[in-house]
Formats: sequence, C-alpha cells, structure tokens
Amino acid sequence: MSLEQVASAAKEASIPLAAAKTVDKDRALAMIAKALQENGGNVVAANEQDLQEARRNNLAGPLLKRLRFDQAKIAEACQGIESLIQLEDPIGKTLYAMELDEGLELYRITCPIGVVGIVFESRPDALVQISTLCLKSGNAVLLKGGSEAGRTNRILTGIIAQATAEAGIPDGWIQLLETRQQVTEMLALDRYIDLIIPRGSNAFVRHIMDNTRIPVLGHAEGICHVYVDGPADLDKALRIVVDSKCQYVAVCNAAETLLVDERIARAFLPKVKDALGRRSVEIRGCDKTRAVIDCKPAIEADWSTEYLDYILSIKVVNGVDEAVGHINRYGSHHTDSIVTKDRAAAARFLERVDSADVFWNCSTRFSDGFRYGLGAEVGISTNKIHARGPVGLEGLVIYKWKLLGDGHVVADYSGTSARQFRHVRLDRDCPL
Amino acid sequence: MSLEQVASAAKEASIPLAAAKTVDKDRALAMIAKALQENGGNVVAANEQDLQEARRNNLAGPLLKRLRFDQAKIAEACQGIESLIQLEDPIGKTLYAMELDEGLELYRITCPIGVVGIVFESRPDALVQISTLCLKSGNAVLLKGGSEAGRTNRILTGIIAQATAEAGIPDGWIQLLETRQQVTEMLALDRYIDLIIPRGSNAFVRHIMDNTRIPVLGHAEGICHVYVDGPADLDKALRIVVDSKCQYVAVCNAAETLLVDERIARAFLPKVKDALGRRSVEIRGCDKTRAVIDCKPAIEADWSTEYLDYILSIKVVNGVDEAVGHINRYGSHHTDSIVTKDRAAAARFLERVDSADVFWNCSTRFSDGFRYGLGAEVGISTNKIHARGPVGLEGLVIYKWKLLGDGHVVADYSGTSARQFRHVRLDRDCPL
Repeated sequence: MSLEQVASAAKEASIPLAAAKTVDKDRALAMIAKALQENGGNVVAANEQDLQEARRNNLAGPLLKRLRFDQAKIAEACQGIESLIQLEDPIGKTLYAMELDEGLELYRITCPIGVVGIVFESRPDALVQISTLCLKSGNAVLLKGGSEAGRTNRILTGIIAQATAEAGIPDGWIQLLETRQQVTEMLALDRYIDLIIPRGSNAFVRHIMDNTRIPVLGHAEGICHVYVDGPADLDKALRIVVDSKCQYVAVCNAAETLLVDERIARAFLPKVKDALGRRSVEIRGCDKTRAVIDCKPAIEADWSTEYLDYILSIKVVNGVDEAVGHINRYGSHHTDSIVTKDRAAAARFLERVDSADVFWNCSTRFSDGFRYGLGAEVGISTNKIHARGPVGLEGLVIYKWKLLGDGHVVADYSGTSARQFRHVRLDRDCPL
Repeated sequence: MSLEQVASAAKEASIPLAAAKTVDKDRALAMIAKALQENGGNVVAANEQDLQEARRNNLAGPLLKRLRFDQAKIAEACQGIESLIQLEDPIGKTLYAMELDEGLELYRITCPIGVVGIVFESRPDALVQISTLCLKSGNAVLLKGGSEAGRTNRILTGIIAQATAEAGIPDGWIQLLETRQQVTEMLALDRYIDLIIPRGSNAFVRHIMDNTRIPVLGHAEGICHVYVDGPADLDKALRIVVDSKCQYVAVCNAAETLLVDERIARAFLPKVKDALGRRSVEIRGCDKTRAVIDCKPAIEADWSTEYLDYILSIKVVNGVDEAVGHINRYGSHHTDSIVTKDRAAAARFLERVDSADVFWNCSTRFSDGFRYGLGAEVGISTNKIHARGPVGLEGLVIYKWKLLGDGHVVADYSGTSARQFRHVRLDRDCPL
C-alpha cells in the first residue's frame, strides 16, 4: 500500500469510528490489554532483538533504558489502559444547546478530530498510550516511532489492530509508518490527515511545522523559568529551583533560567550556588548575579537557549514586572513558576505570563499529563489555539454543530415581515 | 512605524489587555458606541467619499451596497455593541479544577489568544463587529479591510482606538493595516501574531494558509449539500432546496449540490426542475437525474465546484450511506443538510457527515453566527481543531493551566518512597 492508500484507509475508518459507542470502545480497550498480556512473551522477544541491535549500534544507556519494553512495562501499559477505560468518553457531549425558533434547535456536540498523525521517540510504551488515547477519543491514528524500536512497534501495532478488529472497531484505524520518507509524504496528505503531533528534537518539530498545511500540535522547545520574588520563603525557593533544574535535566519542563528579585539576590544567590554546585550545575549569570557570586558570564543567547543539561542561566531583576517581561520575551510559552509569599504578585505573574502552564510555589517539572491527572498525554502543546499544555483526551476532540428543524428556511427570517429568532438556551442534550 | 513595530506594540498591549476586568472592557465597549454616535456625521462623510470613488471605479451594485455605512448602519453597529456588552465575559472561567495533592491545586482557566490578525472584505460594519469581539475577549487585533473602504475604516479605527484609550484599554491593542504588502509581511510575524482569520475569496484564503506558520482560522470554500432522503416530506424538501440554493447564492453556506434518494427521484426531481427553473437556476445532473428530467450533464468537476451562482448540480444516490460518502469525499466540511422523516437516517447522517454544521430538515443558510445566537461572528471555520462553524467570542479564547503549590517538588513524587498523587476533582474557581 502507498502512504496515500494507508491514509485514505485511515480516513475511511475514522467515519464509523467517530460513531462508535462508548461500550464498544471500552470493550476494545479491554481486549487490547488482554492481548498484550497473552502475547507478552512475543513482545518481549521482539524488544530483546531491538535492544541487541541497539547495543551493537552503541546506543547510549538512557536511550537503551527508554527502549526497553519488558513484562513490567507491559503490566504498566495494561494498568494505563485500565485507567483509560474508567475515564469518561469525551465524544458526543452536548456543549451548548439553544432553541433558535419553534422546532429549530441547535446543539454543539463533541466529536473526534478524525485522523491524527503522531511521530514519537523510541519508547514503545508511548505507542500503547497514544493509540489507546486515540481509540477512546474515536480518532484514527498513523504512528511513526523511533526506528530503534522497529520490531517492538510492529508487534505492538499488530496486537492492537487485531484485538480491536475482533472487538468490531473498523480496520485501518491504526497503522504504523516505518520510514522517514513516509513521514515526509504524510506532511502533504492534508486531504486525509487532520492533525500532526510531533514529539522529538526542536529541529525536528520545527521542520514539521514549516513543511505542512496540516495543523501541528506540540512544542519545539521548553525554555522554562523560575522567578524567586522578594517575599519568597528562600528554603522552599531553593528546593523548587533545584527540582526544576536537576530532577531530570533532559526534558522540556526542566528550568533553564532562574530570575531573582534584586531584593533577595544577596541572600539567595550564594545558597543557589552552593546547592547547584553540589550537583555539578554550571551557572551563567548576568552582571548583577556575578557581583554576588562567582560564575561564568551569561551572554544574550543564553536567555533563549534550552540547555537540556546541567547548566542554568541566572538574571537579577527588579521585581515581578521585569520577570514577566523577560519570560514573555525570551521564553517558549511552556511552563514558568513564581516563588513568593505575596499573593498579589503571584496573581499578577499567573495572569501576565503568556505560557501554557503558570505555577505558584512549585516546580516546573509538574507540567505533565500524568501528574495533572489527565491519564496519559499525547504531547505538551505550546500552541495558542485548540489545546495548551499537557494534552490528553480532551485535546483530541473537536465539536460539530447539529441543527434540527422541521422544514425551516432562512427566507422566512429575512425581509420586511421577517420572523424573529428566539435564541433561548436549552438545558438538555441533543436527542440525536 | 514598520509592521514589525506595529505587531510588537499589539503584542505588548495584549498582556495587560488579557488581564483587563470585565467591567472595564464593557465600559470601553459602551464608550465606543457613544463615540460612534457622536462622530456619526464624520463617519458618514468619510464613507460618502469612499462610495464616490467606488462609483467612479464602477464597483458593482451589490459591492457598493456592502460598502455603504450610513446612520442606519451606525445605529445597527451600536445595537450590536449593546448585545455584546450583555454577553458573558469568556475570559477567566475555570474549566477544570483538581487537587493534585495536599496544597497543590491545578486550574485550567480561559484566557485570550493574544494578537489576532484579521483580513476582511469591504464591509465597514465588519470592522466594528470584529474589533469589539476581540476587545470583549481580551485580544489585540490587527485589521486589514478592503481598500475600497479605506477612509471609512481609518476613521472607524481612530474612533475605536481613542474611545478605548480613554476607557483605560492599553494603546496599540487595535491597529489598521493599509496595504496588501503589509498583509504579506504579517504572515512572517509568528513571533507576535497568534492567529490569522482571513475572509475573502478561496484563492486568497488558500494563499494565506500556504504562506504562514501562524495558525489560520477560516474556510477556503463552502461546497454545501442538501440530501433528500426517501422518507422525506417533499414539500418541505422543496422549500429547503430552494432556500439553500437561492436565498443568497453568493455566500459560503448556499447549497451547490443536491443529492436525491433514488426511491423518490421520479417524484421529486420534476418539482425541483420546476421550482428552480422559475428562479433561473441552471441544473447539472448525473445520468440518473437526466433519465428523469431534462438538464445539462454534470461532469466530475461539478461535484467539487463552489458555483456561488444560480447553478445546482444534482446526483441520485441509493440512500443515506452513499450520500454521506459523497459529501465526505467532495464536500468542504462546511454545512450539509438531510431532509427526512426517518429519525435513524437523520442520526446516521448527522453523526457520519464530517462537517462543521450538520442539519436535519432545515436550510444550509442557517449556518451563521447571528442566526446561531452567538452575537456576531469573526468568520466561519472548517478547521478540525480549535473552533468549527460560525466563530464568535468562544473561538477567540484559549486556556492556561495554573498550578498553586506550597513548595512542592517533583522529586518527592518519584523513586522508591514516592508520594502518591490524590487527583481529586475540585468544585471551585481558581482563587487567583
């Protein structure tokens, strides 16, 4: 099959899938979990082959760890599916109901987006999470995983496709792309694909964004900030800075820049240098920072750099407004946190920082679908439309307007003796 | 000012505007209405100059009519502003609240999109509608109207900018672009502009979509269908077909193709020919249609053509599933209507037609923000993300996640003695 045929088949499957009942989708999810458990041995064997090849290719330790999909990971994936079954079906909800006139009723109803193309890194558990989120939200999905996980992804997709076919979900709703060339081809198929969610390096995400008319949901970079305000509890602030920077440096919600109110710079910066020094974090400071602690100088480019490493840039600012200005100018609109005891300053920061996730007195690392209680996530979005921040089921949903009449025509509502619209809000669900 | 400076000023204004209180936005709206009334004479005089020049340039009658902005139009615009003041503020609403753990609370809060660039046709009333919708939803706006309305748009923008400045709305929130070159420049300013809403010809909208990374909300074409099912009331069906096709042919929600169930083709098609013939509508039919009535043959291209004229293509189909298949294949996902007394067939059609607006027993022409009771609209969207169908206030809104803690760090929730998240839904609004 050509990729166009694959995408066309997915589009065709997406129509009955959009109409699938909750009970059928949940039964299909349960059958996926059952099939994963029953075929666990084959999955682990395929994954072992992927791991062996990765070791031969000298893949780095952390990447090998992410690639591993063993019995424990299978059990975890099945638990995830179990929680997804418990979540409410996001489809078919009445968002708005209005009587336009006698016998003419308007309803806004949630429905799936259609066909979603997702490119993800070499974590086989991501394949299970993403595809089950798509199934529950009634979306068909084209998946492209990291090539290192090729064998694992192939067997997982096969298991999911077969289990859902047995449960009556239309064939073709889940399909695996195997080459980079297919990803490139996918970008041109705006006729069949409604949304692309790329996960991966900044350069890769930007490449996708610049080469398709299909809407792209995701983020290119995560330049996250912690701002420690004058009236902060400095012990809490220090824990938050250390966690935001060091708890996991290679991820988008790790902090890259610390902003410090000049009122507490003398008291706080030496504590920061001490705590981060013990964790081998390199500090790059502005002039005012360097007047208090000894560190490398920060250059202009530092404020807009996502290090993803044990490096932190520090700037001293004269209060919350300068912090907000810096973040809105240099940040990536991902996640930013203020540490303060001043409620008004916190409110000002949360309202004016133009980011998907704005935090008060906690670590930027909380920005995550699981921690937010969304179940899994398909990605984290810095878009300003549709979905923002961690994206779970709800970000895979759009709506359609259903208008139910009895022969109503617009001509009756125009001209000199025009009927007037009633526009009365209704408190009921759409009857069909 | 360069366009980059204009856009940067709008972005800067958008931050305090996002934090503006409802009462201040509503007061500013009232001051716009007052200023429009007080300066009515100057507006009409400027519009008269635009009209004179348009007449010299032999602008067509309907276009001249849309260009006219007289005292009656001013009164109408002020009424529109009055209704907008009555609408609920869409900003600052708590969409979701969850306690993640003791003292760690997550809120999803609506907020403005930021800076919206809107290109619209030569209707000065559109300028007032669009800019006041943006103001109420807290968005800064860059406007480019039709050049024929240049003088009118300039004076209207001046009046709105001055009235809102006096009401304390930040300067720069509304700015008028004057040249096509500036529209082209705008497409590159993704750093400052968050959303573009183009209104105009198919070719123009496609050009915009193909030449920017900024999200585009709107529609290129409206290929709308009426499907008359076997068990339809044929008198109602005929009125709906006539209204959908003829009530206003030059608009996106007019019908371009009629699909007729073969069970009623012999009974219904002659009525259609008669009724449309009296209105000088040219019919282009499939072979089965031409076996019943005399008309031009439809060619393949007819099914995907937006005539915007007194032309209708007709195809005989073998029931609701073929109708749905045809619409999903050839339509533009805008507005499609089924006429039937069979409730199950209607439900199947509404669920499976993949369009923004799906109607039962009424005219496609109802697809419109005013008729839907949304107040005004900034456009009609065939997008599959963010907003679909007529777009009013709600389509100009996104959300941010606010997380309120007390020194919480992620390290406490990982590792062997990890704290567990509570994930308890809260039934309250965000306290800040």
